[in-house]
Amino acid sequence: MTRRIGIRTRGQGLYEITRQVQDAVTEAGVDTGLCTLLVQHTSASLTIQENADPSAQRDLEAWLDRLVPENDPLFTHTAEGADDMPSHIKAALTATTLSIPIVGGRLGLGTWQGIYLWEHRHRGSNRNCLVHVS
Amino acid sequence: MTRRIGIRTRGQGLYEITRQVQDAVTEAGVDTGLCTLLVQHTSASLTIQENADPSAQRDLEAWLDRLVPENDPLFTHTAEGADDMPSHIKAALTATTLSIPIVGGRLGLGTWQGIYLWEHRHRGSNRNCLVHVS
Amino acid sequence: MTRRIGIRTRGQGLYEITRQVQDAVTEAGVDTGLCTLLVQHTSASLTIQENADPSAQRDLEAWLDRLVPENDPLFTHTAEGADDMPSHIKAALTATTLSIPIVGGRLGLGTWQGIYLWEHRHRGSNRNCLVHVS
Repeated sequence: MTRRIGIRTRGQGLYEITRQVQDAVTEAGVDTGLCTLLVQHTSASLTIQENADPSAQRDLEAWLDRLVPENDPLFTHTAEGADDMPSHIKAALTATTLSIPIVGGRLGLGTWQGIYLWEHRHRGSNRNCLVHVS
Repeated sequence: MTRRIGIRTRGQGLYEITRQVQDAVTEAGVDTGLCTLLVQHTSASLTIQENADPSAQRDLEAWLDRLVPENDPLFTHTAEGADDMPSHIKAALTATTLSIPIVGGRLGLGTWQGIYLWEHRHRGSNRNCLVHVS
Repeated sequence: MTRRIGIRTRGQGLYEITRQVQDAVTEAGVDTGLCTLLVQHTSASLTIQENADPSAQRDLEAWLDRLVPENDPLFTHTAEGADDMPSHIKAALTATTLSIPIVGGRLGLGTWQGIYLWEHRHRGSNRNCLVHVS
């Protein structure tokens, strides 16, 4: 089963999608299996991160922002805005696809793990994530 | 179905393999499913990136090259050449495996997404990528 | 089939788990298929890296340690120790899930590839990795 999850982002940051992904697994009715995610964009990405303390997500975001600053004189791909090329780099350094085993009808995540869509552009956008359950 | 894709690289850079991967999916005759890629090397990697403007790929390559320079005094693993250890690091920071849902017999990529083999070594090489379709 | 692999780590570094993963594949009795791994933690990660020369693993570890130093004034998530936030960042920059095609009952890895659990925290811990074989 393949299903599309739409996520409306409101700017840079991590948006938790664990519930929507679990809903797709539940809908598929799979007890033991595999759930695979693909974010269909090159300026957003996926990550599995700590879901307990929002400060971890903020620090992660701030650290990556400092590692890949805008207006780097090295950049030639600038026509789509100062945040576009950093977004592609951030996407390459994190994940575009994730595969999560399903155990007893649930995503086999650890206690402190959540699945996040990571928006790298300043302005909000409608992001799509493909979910495959087998 | 598992198939091996061979890619002849001519030095550092991104080599698009979307068509070869789609050919493997078409050959498998799978309508709804999953396509998984593994690059069988530790000095090359995989990425899903923007396929429209080659400047994005060039900037990505140049940025990662600057982040992981050769001849870092920290390196002790130098017997295989100055570009070997940076290649392992670049591979660790990007992807060795990718999993892409198949929808209607096609890779479920977004409009601007292409699949690339990323060669990290200076000299060209014959690279192998395993493709599994189910 | 889903199986849990437990890894006892003794501090920061790469711990090879290729044999344990191959054992799970062998136990599943799958000839052509897919093996997917998820590390169930946000301060440890997975990587496929060179298995021949331990100096490559040491350099990789040292390089990432320097890229993501502790006690960065940017960090606000500090309650769990100075090595906690760097661990989350290192996990985000490497892999949490990996999918490896199975060919002839064996993991389809290249000759020089091994699968590693990457411990990012100073103190040892009991780490869990879910393995799904289909």
